Amino acid sequence: MDYYYGPGRNHLFVPGPVNIPDPVIRAMNRNNEDYRSPAIPAMTRTLLEDVKKIFKTTSGIPFIIPTTGTGAWESALTNTLSPGDRTVSFVIGQFSLLWIDQQQRLGFNVDVVESDWGQGANLDILASKLAEDTAHTIKAVCIVHNETATGVTNNLAKVRKILDDYSHPALFLVDGVSSICALDFRMDEWGVDVALTGSQKALSLPTGMGIVCASPKAIEASKTAKSVRVFFDWKDYLKFYSLGTFWPYTPSIQLLYGLRAALDLLFEEGLENVFARHARLGKATRLAVEAWGLKNCTQKEEWFSDTVTAVVVPPYIDSAEIVRRGWKRYNLSLGLGLNKVAGKVFRIGHLGNLNELQLLGCLAGVEMILKDVGYPVKLGSGVAAACAYLQNNTPLIVSRV
Amino acid sequence: MDYYYGPGRNHLFVPGPVNIPDPVIRAMNRNNEDYRSPAIPAMTRTLLEDVKKIFKTTSGIPFIIPTTGTGAWESALTNTLSPGDRTVSFVIGQFSLLWIDQQQRLGFNVDVVESDWGQGANLDILASKLAEDTAHTIKAVCIVHNETATGVTNNLAKVRKILDDYSHPALFLVDGVSSICALDFRMDEWGVDVALTGSQKALSLPTGMGIVCASPKAIEASKTAKSVRVFFDWKDYLKFYSLGTFWPYTPSIQLLYGLRAALDLLFEEGLENVFARHARLGKATRLAVEAWGLKNCTQKEEWFSDTVTAVVVPPYIDSAEIVRRGWKRYNLSLGLGLNKVAGKVFRIGHLGNLNELQLLGCLAGVEMILKDVGYPVKLGSGVAAACAYLQNNTPLIVSRV
Amino acid sequence: MDYYYGPGRNHLFVPGPVNIPDPVIRAMNRNNEDYRSPAIPAMTRTLLEDVKKIFKTTSGIPFIIPTTGTGAWESALTNTLSPGDRTVSFVIGQFSLLWIDQQQRLGFNVDVVESDWGQGANLDILASKLAEDTAHTIKAVCIVHNETATGVTNNLAKVRKILDDYSHPALFLVDGVSSICALDFRMDEWGVDVALTGSQKALSLPTGMGIVCASPKAIEASKTAKSVRVFFDWKDYLKFYSLGTFWPYTPSIQLLYGLRAALDLLFEEGLENVFARHARLGKATRLAVEAWGLKNCTQKEEWFSDTVTAVVVPPYIDSAEIVRRGWKRYNLSLGLGLNKVAGKVFRIGHLGNLNELQLLGCLAGVEMILKDVGYPVKLGSGVAAACAYLQNNTPLIVSRV
Amino acid sequence: MDYYYGPGRNHLFVPGPVNIPDPVIRAMNRNNEDYRSPAIPAMTRTLLEDVKKIFKTTSGIPFIIPTTGTGAWESALTNTLSPGDRTVSFVIGQFSLLWIDQQQRLGFNVDVVESDWGQGANLDILASKLAEDTAHTIKAVCIVHNETATGVTNNLAKVRKILDDYSHPALFLVDGVSSICALDFRMDEWGVDVALTGSQKALSLPTGMGIVCASPKAIEASKTAKSVRVFFDWKDYLKFYSLGTFWPYTPSIQLLYGLRAALDLLFEEGLENVFARHARLGKATRLAVEAWGLKNCTQKEEWFSDTVTAVVVPPYIDSAEIVRRGWKRYNLSLGLGLNKVAGKVFRIGHLGNLNELQLLGCLAGVEMILKDVGYPVKLGSGVAAACAYLQNNTPLIVSRV
Repeated sequence: MDYYYGPGRNHLFVPGPVNIPDPVIRAMNRNNEDYRSPAIPAMTRTLLEDVKKIFKTTSGIPFIIPTTGTGAWESALTNTLSPGDRTVSFVIGQFSLLWIDQQQRLGFNVDVVESDWGQGANLDILASKLAEDTAHTIKAVCIVHNETATGVTNNLAKVRKILDDYSHPALFLVDGVSSICALDFRMDEWGVDVALTGSQKALSLPTGMGIVCASPKAIEASKTAKSVRVFFDWKDYLKFYSLGTFWPYTPSIQLLYGLRAALDLLFEEGLENVFARHARLGKATRLAVEAWGLKNCTQKEEWFSDTVTAVVVPPYIDSAEIVRRGWKRYNLSLGLGLNKVAGKVFRIGHLGNLNELQLLGCLAGVEMILKDVGYPVKLGSGVAAACAYLQNNTPLIVSRV
Repeated sequence: MDYYYGPGRNHLFVPGPVNIPDPVIRAMNRNNEDYRSPAIPAMTRTLLEDVKKIFKTTSGIPFIIPTTGTGAWESALTNTLSPGDRTVSFVIGQFSLLWIDQQQRLGFNVDVVESDWGQGANLDILASKLAEDTAHTIKAVCIVHNETATGVTNNLAKVRKILDDYSHPALFLVDGVSSICALDFRMDEWGVDVALTGSQKALSLPTGMGIVCASPKAIEASKTAKSVRVFFDWKDYLKFYSLGTFWPYTPSIQLLYGLRAALDLLFEEGLENVFARHARLGKATRLAVEAWGLKNCTQKEEWFSDTVTAVVVPPYIDSAEIVRRGWKRYNLSLGLGLNKVAGKVFRIGHLGNLNELQLLGCLAGVEMILKDVGYPVKLGSGVAAACAYLQNNTPLIVSRV
Repeated sequence: MDYYYGPGRNHLFVPGPVNIPDPVIRAMNRNNEDYRSPAIPAMTRTLLEDVKKIFKTTSGIPFIIPTTGTGAWESALTNTLSPGDRTVSFVIGQFSLLWIDQQQRLGFNVDVVESDWGQGANLDILASKLAEDTAHTIKAVCIVHNETATGVTNNLAKVRKILDDYSHPALFLVDGVSSICALDFRMDEWGVDVALTGSQKALSLPTGMGIVCASPKAIEASKTAKSVRVFFDWKDYLKFYSLGTFWPYTPSIQLLYGLRAALDLLFEEGLENVFARHARLGKATRLAVEAWGLKNCTQKEEWFSDTVTAVVVPPYIDSAEIVRRGWKRYNLSLGLGLNKVAGKVFRIGHLGNLNELQLLGCLAGVEMILKDVGYPVKLGSGVAAACAYLQNNTPLIVSRV
Repeated sequence: MDYYYGPGRNHLFVPGPVNIPDPVIRAMNRNNEDYRSPAIPAMTRTLLEDVKKIFKTTSGIPFIIPTTGTGAWESALTNTLSPGDRTVSFVIGQFSLLWIDQQQRLGFNVDVVESDWGQGANLDILASKLAEDTAHTIKAVCIVHNETATGVTNNLAKVRKILDDYSHPALFLVDGVSSICALDFRMDEWGVDVALTGSQKALSLPTGMGIVCASPKAIEASKTAKSVRVFFDWKDYLKFYSLGTFWPYTPSIQLLYGLRAALDLLFEEGLENVFARHARLGKATRLAVEAWGLKNCTQKEEWFSDTVTAVVVPPYIDSAEIVRRGWKRYNLSLGLGLNKVAGKVFRIGHLGNLNELQLLGCLAGVEMILKDVGYPVKLGSGVAAACAYLQNNTPLIVSRV
């Protein structure tokens, strides 16, 4: 028995968990297996090799941890830092806020840099902090690549440049939860020390894998980091890596096969094509929002996110009602506004395994809901704007025939 | 390995096979079972009882045959008629044509009543034939409820009325392949003698079940019908029905469980709601076609089909190119024009397990394809027209919460 | 909701439908697709090519028909013979009997050759009939390769030899339903004109595909055969083969993908290894039966079947009770005795995707059931006999690591 | 592509991850969903209520954490204890050892009580420690209910009695990973303060859920416990429980539906019947081991585990070779000997969704492997002993017909 049913498909446009491709669902449709048989290590070897490609790293060491993004954060922090260590961290929305909360609860001394929700991380302040920090008390710069709550993408290349400008040795820790596999991510080029994502985001899998990738510098730091950790300790993984059995504790057999299938599909489509598809769908969404006469929560184009768009509603509308309506009337799942922007924005997630007509169906749905709740939208306007762009920019799709 | 892959979901809008609901896919995801165990007959008993409801019959006897619609046709004909028997049959498109071809090859003497493709069955000619046939040489009137090739729905109540007007004893055989479970079908009220459908149409299952329902009069006829038949012979089923083991030969275990799940969903939504949903989506599609400035192949409103719309393209466009483009560029599956209307129409199937936003995604896709192939469509126009209608007419969806 | 549940796995040992390999269940776990898209013909081309390999034919033409074995029989007969044609056919059990019943109902003049149930086809009588038939009135010799009801395998090479000895031009039609993909089958070498099987047997798929393979001579015969047929007519297939679209009516998308996966597994294991595995499991079963002190229904070793063993129970035991017990107490599905041997034999199907330990679990179960119903079996005796043989004869299994 | 294939089913007899029932696999065969929609909280409410039943608690509060058993351990410890706290913990095998290692790495002051591997926890030493601890410096007694490495079950009622005898207020923390849902577990009756299990054990799900249940006393302790924690912090769960949205971070939609299905099956069978089945299969396994002339690693009957049996092999045999052989030759997955007993024992897991014939197939396989590796086993002897017991003790199975 399901706990929900409406005719036709659910239109899943929350920024996570996202749609799982059918071949991946098939790959996971299986019984358990002995993870100590020769088969699972053989597969794991390919997974660890291939996972590096989604981080664009050759020197990084990936850890596939049975946890969520929150756990992946904790793994990144506790393996590289010691209680009392100073970090610089940016609040630009709910998820960056939660990460800072975690940093504080784990006992770090967090230098919080605030921005308005809808703006990117204030990198000027980062620059001035690094400039002042000649004693190198800052041990890590922690930044969310893409803030899911507001649809803001930070410029990581610029962060690296600032670190380099001041020759600052701080670790560069990045939450790539809603970016990796959707937005271009270049761990090696940007000198990221720990990057992480969750399986239920652009990898388009169920929740259950936190994937953390550590640079050699981060691995080195983990040898002296004093944060208490066991479940999240990289040391146990490294021990089992060297044994060739890979798993310090039981992995999800289904997710391993799912990850194998998900990576195969991403590579078949081509990572650069995947990024281009996300850019295309993101742009089309923003054009629709503009056509509806609504504001993007993201305040400047440089921060526009290609994975999620937070749409600001007029003050006389409760954005939560839009989400409720979508679900009850059109089988459409949109993202709520969170915390400071609760009631003020709703979010369209356009990441993961998605295509043009799915998005257009969603946009048409949003138009009808807007009308439902009393906003004077011109029906068809957003779809028209999106179509005009997409019709000129969509390539022939990947296909095997 | 699949033989096809594009990112995101396939948008399946051929008029069959249609989308299978996820709960039904789940129900069929299973190993084989012994069909002679107590479990399968126990389930079959409920299936045979519940299948009657989709025909709206209480006196009919259903046969669930491991075959397709073509086989269901053959079962209907060979069990009720003898070689040389005269039938009246109507060509209004490719599928009615194929059924007539079958009737002729099975040795019946078919009185073919032709209409332009795009028109319904010419019932005036039927009336005159029945009027003349005081000797009752016409043994059966065979009619396709909904012609899938042209999107034409025939008026079965009127056929019954004509038969009654002339007190004609001819059997009334109906192909309900693309109507049953989508359009209101009233076997008992309309005095249909044999009605049939296929699992891959509005029942929203895989292909593999021809479901045939016979009135007591048809069952009576089967006792003397001389057409040669074994696999399709109702007699074998009736024998196993009386034994309580039900199946003269091995059924598909998966399809039985799938049928159980499909019926449960239809009844949960409510058959009348299902019909209303089809009417809504059909109307929305036709409004879009009109907004595009294109013609519906169906020539009069009385014949408009709520399960499939055949769209006529301008002479300078090859409709097959529209279908090809849809598949290669937008992961959209549309129906080809068949036979007389090949190249001239493409078809949008809107039957089975489908909802508003799926249809709107399809319509947006069609607009882009029309532009792709050089038709001067106003992008967004069809979607706008459909949305304007749907936004006023879509109820809150069925849900369990 | 299922209609049956017991803890642990169901042990499926009926001679069909048989266990589906997990990778095949996965391959079929999917939505419908447009069968007129480029993807399905591309896959079909490989299926038709590869299906020939399971018949060991290069010149035969296969037809994959949405039907069961009964329908495959009908296809074989109606495409090659005309009403009134004389056939020679052998009753050796329930399935050969049913095929003869079909032949008679289809209007052929059947020369029935009877054997005791438990014996193979009486080929001496065939020889004498052919010898007498200098006028070549016999149009076809119809034989069941493996009689599922009694576990008897007929010698097809010998049938061919007899036909050759008398230079008799009769068509050679073979029911390979419970043999093909399990026992060595050599269509070309044995000069079989039509061979057929069903998907739910040794191919280890769900029910729903009758696979029929016709020799050039059979194809030639089909051009003049006068039996009435439409759904089963090869002509429609041949027309669509030449169009390259392959399917005269809607195939089951799921079964096509399932067949692809099933063939891949068979070829990965290697057909000869598959046959050896069946021989091994058949032999082990017979050794167990012997150890229990029970009689094999099959009267001579030359007819022993490697796909099913019919076990004769003592007169004071009702074999149906054994089957009932197995299902209710041990989640074990055994085959009933049919018709003449109802109540007297139960059957162990050991065909399809099965391995040693599955069989041994079944044999242990049978021992306990025998004790349950009052037969003085020595517990462990059959398993011991089977193990002694298997432990010496089981190779390292196929594996990818 | 799988990384492993052999004909027939894999026989999974490692002590985890265990076999998933087919209805549960079906329930998990699905796309992601928005976990903030009304459907997921509605389902979660039933899960949290029903999960208490498997702990036999009415006052406990369960936490379903996206982690493994190792993470569940960490959750139990860090929420109730502060760095430096004294715990009493028992080494009786690899998993109790690992838990102690975790306790030490988390900074607790662990009083380790050692036993020979094959013996239960030394409760006399516990008694004397509690007797001496009048100052109540012992903050927690940590015990593994069932040590998976050696097949030893500890007597929890006795632990409680000892605590009560000395009116000692120490928290009673129990690892029920390989016991809960298989062995009788009585959280309230035994006054357990934190009990925990993992989804991939007797719950018969994939890996990915650590289920922790806390008594009111444990919840109280969590308010002052100073161990650093974020991901594993109960506080975040409790906050979301009170909001009615339940999940502080994204749960696995698939595992939630799987858990719902798994609980439904357990309750349909009846928990007491589930325990009885485990007792039956455990006993049958031990009888087989005895018949083979081999020793159970577990030294006394009072500690015999009904979920896993560790079998000691003669010194001239490497138990790892038995496991390797099983996998390569018979598609059988057995558990390796770990740490101190590596090479000396192999393990038969008989927990989770399993029935008699599956176990008997496994036992027959083990006999053949023993012979393969040179142990002079009498083939059939173990199966005979197991059958003799099972045939007298197996009830008619749960069934819906």
